[in-house]
Amino acid sequence: MTGTSQLTGELFIGATRVAGTAEPVRARDPRTGDVLEPAFGGATAADVDRAATLAARAFRPYRTLPAARRAAFLEGAAQRVSDVADELVARVVAETGIPQARVRGELARTVNQLRLFAAVVREGSAAGVRIEHALPEREPLPRPDLRQRRVPVGPVAVFGASNFPLAFSVAGGDTASALAAGCPVVVKAHPGHPGTSELVATAIAAAAAEQDLPDGVFSLLHDTGHEVGAALVAHPAIAAVGFTGSRAGGLALVDVANRRPVPIPVHAEMSSVNPVVLLPGALAARGAQLGSAFVASMTVGQGQLCTNPGLVLAVEGPGLQEFLDAAAAAVGASAAAPMLSTGIHDAFERGVAALREHPHVEEVATGAGDERIAAAGTVHLFTTTADAFEADEELSREVFGASSLVVRVPSTDRLAGLLERLEGQLTASVHLADGDHGVVRELLPVLEEKAGRIVADGWPTGVDVGRAVVHGGPFPATSDGRSTSVGTLAIERWLRPVAYQDLPAALRPPEVADGPSAG
Amino acid sequence: MTGTSQLTGELFIGATRVAGTAEPVRARDPRTGDVLEPAFGGATAADVDRAATLAARAFRPYRTLPAARRAAFLEGAAQRVSDVADELVARVVAETGIPQARVRGELARTVNQLRLFAAVVREGSAAGVRIEHALPEREPLPRPDLRQRRVPVGPVAVFGASNFPLAFSVAGGDTASALAAGCPVVVKAHPGHPGTSELVATAIAAAAAEQDLPDGVFSLLHDTGHEVGAALVAHPAIAAVGFTGSRAGGLALVDVANRRPVPIPVHAEMSSVNPVVLLPGALAARGAQLGSAFVASMTVGQGQLCTNPGLVLAVEGPGLQEFLDAAAAAVGASAAAPMLSTGIHDAFERGVAALREHPHVEEVATGAGDERIAAAGTVHLFTTTADAFEADEELSREVFGASSLVVRVPSTDRLAGLLERLEGQLTASVHLADGDHGVVRELLPVLEEKAGRIVADGWPTGVDVGRAVVHGGPFPATSDGRSTSVGTLAIERWLRPVAYQDLPAALRPPEVADGPSAG
Repeated sequence: MTGTSQLTGELFIGATRVAGTAEPVRARDPRTGDVLEPAFGGATAADVDRAATLAARAFRPYRTLPAARRAAFLEGAAQRVSDVADELVARVVAETGIPQARVRGELARTVNQLRLFAAVVREGSAAGVRIEHALPEREPLPRPDLRQRRVPVGPVAVFGASNFPLAFSVAGGDTASALAAGCPVVVKAHPGHPGTSELVATAIAAAAAEQDLPDGVFSLLHDTGHEVGAALVAHPAIAAVGFTGSRAGGLALVDVANRRPVPIPVHAEMSSVNPVVLLPGALAARGAQLGSAFVASMTVGQGQLCTNPGLVLAVEGPGLQEFLDAAAAAVGASAAAPMLSTGIHDAFERGVAALREHPHVEEVATGAGDERIAAAGTVHLFTTTADAFEADEELSREVFGASSLVVRVPSTDRLAGLLERLEGQLTASVHLADGDHGVVRELLPVLEEKAGRIVADGWPTGVDVGRAVVHGGPFPATSDGRSTSVGTLAIERWLRPVAYQDLPAALRPPEVADGPSAG
Repeated sequence: MTGTSQLTGELFIGATRVAGTAEPVRARDPRTGDVLEPAFGGATAADVDRAATLAARAFRPYRTLPAARRAAFLEGAAQRVSDVADELVARVVAETGIPQARVRGELARTVNQLRLFAAVVREGSAAGVRIEHALPEREPLPRPDLRQRRVPVGPVAVFGASNFPLAFSVAGGDTASALAAGCPVVVKAHPGHPGTSELVATAIAAAAAEQDLPDGVFSLLHDTGHEVGAALVAHPAIAAVGFTGSRAGGLALVDVANRRPVPIPVHAEMSSVNPVVLLPGALAARGAQLGSAFVASMTVGQGQLCTNPGLVLAVEGPGLQEFLDAAAAAVGASAAAPMLSTGIHDAFERGVAALREHPHVEEVATGAGDERIAAAGTVHLFTTTADAFEADEELSREVFGASSLVVRVPSTDRLAGLLERLEGQLTASVHLADGDHGVVRELLPVLEEKAGRIVADGWPTGVDVGRAVVHGGPFPATSDGRSTSVGTLAIERWLRPVAYQDLPAALRPPEVADGPSAG
């Protein structure tokens, strides 16, 4: 109701709110450059230790709660986030410059995601139960009774992302899936949106209190730099890490995790150019339409989405010019918009400058600028040749923001080779017509080896949060391609299997009791 | 039939047998110390590169074969290993000193394991298919058609283990699960049993030829030291690693894998003392019986099993003395037997000496020695107090071989604290009577957090290879506690999920086609 009047700038050390005494985090409106109130006191090493230690103490009582309590907690958090929607949306807009309509969409997604994981907890499927009854007469050796289920790994450190202040931050997919798994969570808030983080943390803390959960199930820490995050990942009480952000940031955390006396897994979603292949049949049938749809996808969130289509492999022939013309027109008509921060804006400008200076890259369209906006991102479209692309690995690197590179590919024969050269990707998309099926059949194995999600006749932006989606992919799209950070499979990141051998029925955890699923 | 007359000492670089030109590996009979024929030429860096490159080339054609072909390959390998059983058993006995009866058991397990993974391939459950049909009318956004399945990660490097020359070596669980997943395998043979390795590799290579598999699906490399293994793990064509062996060896490979430009997962099964808890009711009811059964378990394989019970937490009270007396008697009556190698024997002797010199540890029984055996392992039983155990972390370290430490625990109240101090374990066992249920209920959460398999009223040695077993556990039992190296779940180590969005039905892989399982 009243803007950000509720915000205290405090840390959440479990259920206790504490004024952080390290350098304060100050949010800044990227549209104006104005500093926003209040100041958010940074966490000290002692705060990190207290939050992690509380999480470790909360772990066993939390994980052994009945599933219904955990589900109710997630549902309560969803409801309380919903309850402050207006204030939350206003604060996200102020802290990130993301348009209100998109923030509302992200909020709905975040709330639905919490509820989806509550449903997963209630149905119990993530426990991965496998039961083999004893075979006392088996030769040469009797078979024992063996029952397997998954248990949570322990407290999880979650790092908020700059580009999804709700869906990949304090109550985002990492937090929701970890809490659903039975893991306490310590969140390191992204310094770009500390007020948003506090509002969401308040909702989670209230839901935890409502369910009378053990103190330490959830904590929130602020930090202007990297020290708190590194200390958190290094803390012996932390058992796993969830991160969405830059490659440098993710790899730094992986390094800290690997150097621990007890190394822990880091699930970092980092970097992807999300190649889009335009096949001849599709271009011939709808080149112009593809051009404008492409620009709509590449400019969502001013290009600051993990799934932004930064690379197009377009086969020469009928329709390619129409595609380029329509894309150039759409880019030319695109408005500038604030990027998430001046740091991201500066990195974007450097990436664009490098493309502009490249001898074999041509800038075919540029969007409008806007000098009234402090960190205005302008849209850029570049083209190059397949030969030039193959000759310079730099051209396949991500430029985070609304800049894309279209590679003119002389024939479909070159596509597999070009795709093989790419690093691991979150997504790979193909636009095709019936006549292109043969080419797609040849490319599919390559795409499967390179990406976590393969999109046909669509654009990579817009990730449906459900049971079949994969938002992951081989390194460096993520640090561990065997999982996903979106969708219900994400819960498996925080679980490990345990087998019970010949445990008396009276002592078995309910998940592995005999029942209709046994066999 | 004719002993080892078939052995050539060659490497398998895919389907081609090549004489290795690096320092040759020589097997030694640990019973006599005699060097065995022939010499096995070591692999050069060029051999590593050729094997890994061939594996990368074989990956796509192999993984896209119909599942039935992959299953037939595994079954063919199983059959061909069976076909050379007599020669194989004789060679294993000569190279490792493991008694013939146990080798026959391990051979049966290895063959069954290959067949079990063939069955997993045929039934297709490891593909982890999840299907969500399109909901074009969904508000606010339509849902796309999303279909998820797992695909193999790429070529896998497998390291043979010294203590299971069949079940954890060339055609062991790592190889069987990786080949079942669709991953080509390059095995680095353990230098302790090169002839065994060649015989098994011959069987696999013949089965691959019979199925006309792409060249490079399987390779075998020899090396006297660590260079070939390190080069293999560092090779860009390798996508994952399976290892069973020492903590130092496993961690060295993890380090190589983490330093790669593209890091890869290492599944290393390393170190465990496999605590056994003896509760008052069980001791009172059957102390003496537990004592002799314990020694039977701790001396299997002369204590050189990953699941060897190296630590017993026994609660003071009726039956404990009977347990100790029976155990001491059994140890005293135990014969010496050859250990797997002089290196392992030397390390065992050092571990035993450290316990003997410990001021708070008492040696309660020692088995017979045998001067006729070159690397004779003698059985040792030690006791200590709970206080001494708590005061010295060294007492919880693994001594690889037939040496166990019994901790006299003054009351059940102390058990949780003692268990909490332990590192991650492959197994934790509890012996109980009805009156002990309350204590077990309190201990179970601790055991779940420490171990991969919890055994009630049994001993940790003897791992049933099935669908519900877990042979894994938190670090340092393994480098990645989210999996198992025994049982069908082991296949998931070599798979990663991929989602197909709106892919036309004609282009869908058969695994994700609409069918009775869709929903």
